[in-house]
Amino acid sequence: MEFQRVEEKPRHFNHFYPAIAAVIGVEAEGRVNFMPAVWNVGLSFDPPLFGVSVSPKRFTHGLLEAASAFSVTFHPYEQAERVQRLGSVSGCEVDKVAAFGLEVVRGRALDVPLLGGFYAAYELEKTAAWPAGDHTLFVGRLRGVWEDPAAFTAEALDPARVRALLYFGRYRYGYPASETRVLGKR
Amino acid sequence: MEFQRVEEKPRHFNHFYPAIAAVIGVEAEGRVNFMPAVWNVGLSFDPPLFGVSVSPKRFTHGLLEAASAFSVTFHPYEQAERVQRLGSVSGCEVDKVAAFGLEVVRGRALDVPLLGGFYAAYELEKTAAWPAGDHTLFVGRLRGVWEDPAAFTAEALDPARVRALLYFGRYRYGYPASETRVLGKR
Repeated sequence: MEFQRVEEKPRHFNHFYPAIAAVIGVEAEGRVNFMPAVWNVGLSFDPPLFGVSVSPKRFTHGLLEAASAFSVTFHPYEQAERVQRLGSVSGCEVDKVAAFGLEVVRGRALDVPLLGGFYAAYELEKTAAWPAGDHTLFVGRLRGVWEDPAAFTAEALDPARVRALLYFGRYRYGYPASETRVLGKR
Repeated sequence: MEFQRVEEKPRHFNHFYPAIAAVIGVEAEGRVNFMPAVWNVGLSFDPPLFGVSVSPKRFTHGLLEAASAFSVTFHPYEQAERVQRLGSVSGCEVDKVAAFGLEVVRGRALDVPLLGGFYAAYELEKTAAWPAGDHTLFVGRLRGVWEDPAAFTAEALDPARVRALLYFGRYRYGYPASETRVLGKR
């Protein structure tokens, strides 16, 4: 086991991966944009809050600041290239929807765009934006849930039915093995 | 595709899983305690910040409030039962270290306990605690990194070498498939 004391930055910051490569959807200032967000997290059950961490360098950051709502969509491994492509160009330079021919689904609870092709999705009302280092954590309250019922068994994603898109860092993508175990409360 | 409008709470809040079931380690008030934290997230590269979301109902929450530092450790699927067990009892009632015979590794950069058996681990200096709904997001600045060099290829976890512990919700655990793909920047 190697140990590294961190004064400034670690050699790499990928130890907490893999993580779900979700996609943020937001519309503001007349622009619809999508970007992958691996730094996403549950924050509260009641009220249901979900967060995404975005760098101010991203075009999406400005849209999230201006918008009152955003979406987060969850996509299968088969869409890895589409998701990766979304992260490889800036909405500042390219209208990704037009350039990539993306399917845009409109929110039903909130006026937000969702990237089509998801097996689950959240419509989120923006409730806070916390600056943290070189990113901002945008917090949203859940107002709508989309769910492919075939993907979920006993209210948990069944990896034998849908291969969730996982990100390992360094442009490496994967998915969960279909084998799982349920461990009872003890 | 089903849609649910959310007024209060969703039917379930597992759509963003699977997520890494990391373990928080903290020492305060003369007590060492460990708990699983599926709600964990990268927050910043420079400075390197990492967050864990914990309910005030948890014994660990009080320790995290009192402590100036904490650890987060990453464990293989083979330790799923140990991790699950940590979440099934409260440190308020049980000294988990003694009751479960846990190996405690001492931090090298900070005076924190780490749960033994990890393939990677962070020593974190607490920098903030943000209340969000029914949880608090504790933010830590990375001061030390432990890493099993055999687990990481090209600075990303290699799922063919280590099976990271994934949580799907509803006590269901799994791990990533060994197949991955690297998708270049475009």
